[in-house]
Amino acid sequence: MNIHAKRIKDLQYLLKQNRLDAIVLSRTLEIGFLTGFHLDGLLMLVSRTGAWAFMPKMLLADFNSKVNFVKASSPDNMLEAAAAKVKELGLKKAVFEPETESYLRGNFWKKCGFAEHKGLTSSLRKIKEGEEVELLRKSCHIAAKAFGIIKPRIKTGRTELSVYRELEDIMQAMGAKGPSFNLIIGFGPDSALPHHETSERKLRNNEAVLIDYGCVYGNYCSDITRTYFHGKPDAEFKKVYAIVDAAQKAGLAKVRAGVKTRDVDAACRSHISDAGYGQYFIHGTGHGVGLEIHEAPTLNTKSEEVLTAGMAVTVEPGIYLQGKFGVRIEDSVLVTRTGCEILTKMAR
Amino acid sequence: MNIHAKRIKDLQYLLKQNRLDAIVLSRTLEIGFLTGFHLDGLLMLVSRTGAWAFMPKMLLADFNSKVNFVKASSPDNMLEAAAAKVKELGLKKAVFEPETESYLRGNFWKKCGFAEHKGLTSSLRKIKEGEEVELLRKSCHIAAKAFGIIKPRIKTGRTELSVYRELEDIMQAMGAKGPSFNLIIGFGPDSALPHHETSERKLRNNEAVLIDYGCVYGNYCSDITRTYFHGKPDAEFKKVYAIVDAAQKAGLAKVRAGVKTRDVDAACRSHISDAGYGQYFIHGTGHGVGLEIHEAPTLNTKSEEVLTAGMAVTVEPGIYLQGKFGVRIEDSVLVTRTGCEILTKMAR
Repeated sequence: MNIHAKRIKDLQYLLKQNRLDAIVLSRTLEIGFLTGFHLDGLLMLVSRTGAWAFMPKMLLADFNSKVNFVKASSPDNMLEAAAAKVKELGLKKAVFEPETESYLRGNFWKKCGFAEHKGLTSSLRKIKEGEEVELLRKSCHIAAKAFGIIKPRIKTGRTELSVYRELEDIMQAMGAKGPSFNLIIGFGPDSALPHHETSERKLRNNEAVLIDYGCVYGNYCSDITRTYFHGKPDAEFKKVYAIVDAAQKAGLAKVRAGVKTRDVDAACRSHISDAGYGQYFIHGTGHGVGLEIHEAPTLNTKSEEVLTAGMAVTVEPGIYLQGKFGVRIEDSVLVTRTGCEILTKMAR
Repeated sequence: MNIHAKRIKDLQYLLKQNRLDAIVLSRTLEIGFLTGFHLDGLLMLVSRTGAWAFMPKMLLADFNSKVNFVKASSPDNMLEAAAAKVKELGLKKAVFEPETESYLRGNFWKKCGFAEHKGLTSSLRKIKEGEEVELLRKSCHIAAKAFGIIKPRIKTGRTELSVYRELEDIMQAMGAKGPSFNLIIGFGPDSALPHHETSERKLRNNEAVLIDYGCVYGNYCSDITRTYFHGKPDAEFKKVYAIVDAAQKAGLAKVRAGVKTRDVDAACRSHISDAGYGQYFIHGTGHGVGLEIHEAPTLNTKSEEVLTAGMAVTVEPGIYLQGKFGVRIEDSVLVTRTGCEILTKMAR
């Protein structure tokens, strides 16, 4: 069976298990996950036994040539058509997902008698299986390999943005579609801003280089961060780097099916706190990665989820000394029953 | 006065005019427009006399170093902090924008006593002024110029994706940050799919080439489409191209402050219908362009808006013959009191 047809079957199984009759989906992401068709502007309805897609006329020929397991149409009003289909079929418990819906659409569904139901599609998306794992592995492999190519080319005088562009080119030459987010290239004090906006700043001798990047391959996002010193590192950089490195290794060692996500965060955080830098680790330890660069689950001090085999997450502790430098080390990993597979494994 | 500080003043003026006391904003787009700070994850509250930004701790140093006319803080719960501020100041009529808000946040605001109010920020965004016009002009100029460079390099045997990548590189070399959307490069029958997903298909002799592309420069998006025949065009292509070209010129001739957007659509559409191809023009005539690739206003058969000076819109009629070829011709233009300035003007 086609992998996307199978995912629709999985969703239909979840509907049955949750005693629901139908679910309506609005976002390109979930619809792409279920159909393999990733263009914007569709609406989808899945019942326990059927699946319908509603779309603008201009997408219909393309959709029908690629997807033969979903009934496609181009009604004048897609929202009303989806609601009418639910009525026509006499489906009693139809739902929408409040966490992915817009305010106006969500309230339209409510008015039509749809109920809120959280987490159905994300529970499918967060466990990677079949070709997804291969695509994610390839995406991460391209990203990891790119570091070895770009690093020797990052010389004194180059701008952050020029590195951004060359990194894009390197990953695209290996088959990537493009970057998986606004890549963060930070030189010197810029490396101390976790979400720094890559700029025209030039690299000087003897300063930190932080590269947080990744690519999209077959719609799957990779995420990796490497930090190093351009020149001769002083004692403070060496010390901070060693702390973050050990903290990340402690986090990675904790990852395994059955472990709470917050325990992975605690493993990184306690190592950094014990070393006296707790107040400089100003973000969570990681996040799920897949069709989105940030998706379920979340790995921070408050998160309640439990890791299961097939989840793909990042482990990325950091220490940021404002005005001086920051160090972050990040890998994307696949959770297994006994530990994890580091997908972005390459020399640092 | 700083251009962003001025925009906040403009929004405060609109609050007063609409007898509102405050507005809460969630999207990076609107917050970037008002502050110049374009990173994700902020929440903003604007009253008639003040402006507050709430954000994760890791963004605070960066924000404060760039924006000095908005009070920034990192509360544990940003949503509750914004609601508490409204209460603390005794603001009676606080609103959110239903068209840009998510379902969960919108309902949180409602629960806290905020009312819905449409169109405040979009009414500011859709009229381009000051440096915006310059950035948009430059963005469009880069895109238009890129066509002259890429066209002679599109040779038999090249893939659509390789053209995508080279076009990106050409625009980046001229200063663009990146493409403004998933560029549509369609060879042969692929050109007949208005939202075709650029693929590994190779160009053959004697077929149509359609390139719908644009770039981001200083956060402003350009949008342009060019179609031509690779080889010796047959009579049908020549005829269809001439119809679309004349339809687009008729649309452009209609653009002027005071004209209804649907009259621009009608000018293009009636020309194509009169030529007997009405059923093959399967989308609207255009859309606003700016910080987003698609923004207000909309130019189609149903749209009710009136063009005003300073709006930037696309005019892009097309004819699509499934299995054969499609022709679309698109320019981004700036509406003026007496007509329009074609921002993407270059040889076709």
